[in-house]
Amino acid sequence: MIYVTRREVFSAAHRIFIPGLTDEENFIRYGKCSNPNWHGHNYTLEVVVAGEIDKETGYVIDLNILKEIIKTNIIDKVDHKNLNTETDFMQGIIPSSENIAQAIWNVLADKIPAGKLYSVKLFETENNYFEVRGE
Amino acid sequence: MIYVTRREVFSAAHRIFIPGLTDEENFIRYGKCSNPNWHGHNYTLEVVVAGEIDKETGYVIDLNILKEIIKTNIIDKVDHKNLNTETDFMQGIIPSSENIAQAIWNVLADKIPAGKLYSVKLFETENNYFEVRGE
Amino acid sequence: MIYVTRREVFSAAHRIFIPGLTDEENFIRYGKCSNPNWHGHNYTLEVVVAGEIDKETGYVIDLNILKEIIKTNIIDKVDHKNLNTETDFMQGIIPSSENIAQAIWNVLADKIPAGKLYSVKLFETENNYFEVRGE
Amino acid sequence: MIYVTRREVFSAAHRIFIPGLTDEENFIRYGKCSNPNWHGHNYTLEVVVAGEIDKETGYVIDLNILKEIIKTNIIDKVDHKNLNTETDFMQGIIPSSENIAQAIWNVLADKIPAGKLYSVKLFETENNYFEVRGE
Amino acid sequence: MIYVTRREVFSAAHRIFIPGLTDEENFIRYGKCSNPNWHGHNYTLEVVVAGEIDKETGYVIDLNILKEIIKTNIIDKVDHKNLNTETDFMQGIIPSSENIAQAIWNVLADKIPAGKLYSVKLFETENNYFEVRGE
Amino acid sequence: MIYVTRREVFSAAHRIFIPGLTDEENFIRYGKCSNPNWHGHNYTLEVVVAGEIDKETGYVIDLNILKEIIKTNIIDKVDHKNLNTETDFMQGIIPSSENIAQAIWNVLADKIPAGKLYSVKLFETENNYFEVRGE
Repeated sequence: MIYVTRREVFSAAHRIFIPGLTDEENFIRYGKCSNPNWHGHNYTLEVVVAGEIDKETGYVIDLNILKEIIKTNIIDKVDHKNLNTETDFMQGIIPSSENIAQAIWNVLADKIPAGKLYSVKLFETENNYFEVRGE
Repeated sequence: MIYVTRREVFSAAHRIFIPGLTDEENFIRYGKCSNPNWHGHNYTLEVVVAGEIDKETGYVIDLNILKEIIKTNIIDKVDHKNLNTETDFMQGIIPSSENIAQAIWNVLADKIPAGKLYSVKLFETENNYFEVRGE
Repeated sequence: MIYVTRREVFSAAHRIFIPGLTDEENFIRYGKCSNPNWHGHNYTLEVVVAGEIDKETGYVIDLNILKEIIKTNIIDKVDHKNLNTETDFMQGIIPSSENIAQAIWNVLADKIPAGKLYSVKLFETENNYFEVRGE
Repeated sequence: MIYVTRREVFSAAHRIFIPGLTDEENFIRYGKCSNPNWHGHNYTLEVVVAGEIDKETGYVIDLNILKEIIKTNIIDKVDHKNLNTETDFMQGIIPSSENIAQAIWNVLADKIPAGKLYSVKLFETENNYFEVRGE
Repeated sequence: MIYVTRREVFSAAHRIFIPGLTDEENFIRYGKCSNPNWHGHNYTLEVVVAGEIDKETGYVIDLNILKEIIKTNIIDKVDHKNLNTETDFMQGIIPSSENIAQAIWNVLADKIPAGKLYSVKLFETENNYFEVRGE
Repeated sequence: MIYVTRREVFSAAHRIFIPGLTDEENFIRYGKCSNPNWHGHNYTLEVVVAGEIDKETGYVIDLNILKEIIKTNIIDKVDHKNLNTETDFMQGIIPSSENIAQAIWNVLADKIPAGKLYSVKLFETENNYFEVRGE
């Protein structure tokens, strides 16, 4: 079993808040992350695919194919976007990094042609990161 | 002459656009950076102070003081903020990284108690960064 | 199940040695790490908490709370300290990175209010790091 | 159980291709990675050993010993070498990173004197990496 | 005056040697870097353009344009290539990093449409890097 | 003119204090950096040599020679040492990073056989660094 990782970077705006609450109530719960005027991050995304080496090619999965899958399904929908209002797979979901990572997992889980999705890791800052393993 | 650098990180939303132009005209000029729904970055800021070593203390400048100056004058005004609408020193300025770096220089230039401001470096992503030296 | 990581940095002095041995005997066993005059490191600490996403908040654990737990219980006791002589939870323990990581695990294991401690990773240098998973 | 990681770096040339195919056929399959004139990488290798802490020494394994094992068995055979033509443990194997990582695992698996080999991680670029866990 | 930096990465093979010398003589002079079977690196390239901010756009230079200039003139000629035998601007030049950086400078110097080329920095490994400023 | 940089890492203990002052007075001045029980850092050192490319070799300076000069004159005297009590070139000097960088400059300035010393950069943490250019 080999674990193959592809790393991508995207920049997005978001706001963590609960629609039914006032700005003050959201601030009490989420602090500056709830800023109604938005803030943003350079997110780093690591997608890990687990599988066996194809004896003929030497690959678990062609990384150009994995890169294209991530680009089409994720990066094109989040890079230089507003995660709250523009990203289809985030509609109705609080855009905490936990939820973003889980939503990316849900989008990618059945789109890997060779091997299977093992982990989605999302770095929000250099100090905070989040991993979903689909357990 | 010693060059002392303090590194700080902040996360902010912005949009690069010219108010008088339509969204389409701004898109032609600025591409996805002009997204009307905002996007954001984890910016890394490096502030360099040049000076001679104080023989008594061994310091050019106490980095706790420099850190506090940067926090009060810059970080508190940009971290988890919208640079276009919330940051006082960015009002009326297109928030390109060149202009943000220059504006940070302008704010800090006369606030350094020991030594003098030598450089303001702003990393927008891991691939793009911008330096002002006040020349 | 989501794995949430918080990264912190601290700087400390230490010496790896066995009290009952002479400096020469300790040098044979531990080399320059046994220097009786101490040496030190910038340690990087990564604390991983595993849990399910709270549907109401979107968080596994509020990272400000996790950060505060790590600060009070660990960072305040190790940063700019001598691990051998000053850190309460290291008394009577050889301060190898394995033992430091295990001791940090022991301190934090029952202090996580949401989710549970999954991993403590300690980077001693850019080339050597150590992980405890409490298995 | 503690997981101890040693990181090493090496620079090597390689070419990914299947000997029986023409250059054109290899290009269709592997793209620019099949360049007959070679290309190369700074590979980063992380070797993880799992074990219990030796109560007397505080170590799982002396990292100087682990470093020497990696140097003699791996680094001396790959650093500033051509992986296709010069590295003994890569002969007859397509030098994809998956296969290199697996071959390094095979070489090291029974050479760890304390603890046991848990993981071999190989970073080909900052965006692509590969892990073998011997499962 | 603002200094704008664009970072790019490429992977290439090379060999440092003087054609008129034997392999033994080249080894005495260059050590393992002269390996006749090639070796390679992930090179990091930083191109710095100095200029004044265009008041209308907020940019010194559109980084998409700078990126394209670097891609067409440099990256397409070095990435996954053999610097000794395939890169046109390196023919007849010993491919030391000093010479590669200087050659990249020579190619780019008159191709910058806004501002002017200030620095070309080439990282060969994480420990060795080289800068040309065209002084 | 080419600027060639060699990066090295070392781990050391130190304490910032003025011998004639009490521990309390030193704490007021230097805070936790004055801890009488020492603390330490992984320092990163970057030494920059400026010179012209030797047309015959393609080098400004053979980096193996530069590495050896730094090792013999600096690393062997600071790595896993106490900078206050053990490093000969730091005796009688407050070991602030400014002073350490300046002392390293003083040691190395006349030891570079090809080119001349241009800069000594010392990273104390990931957030604080210090450069001497001998101006």
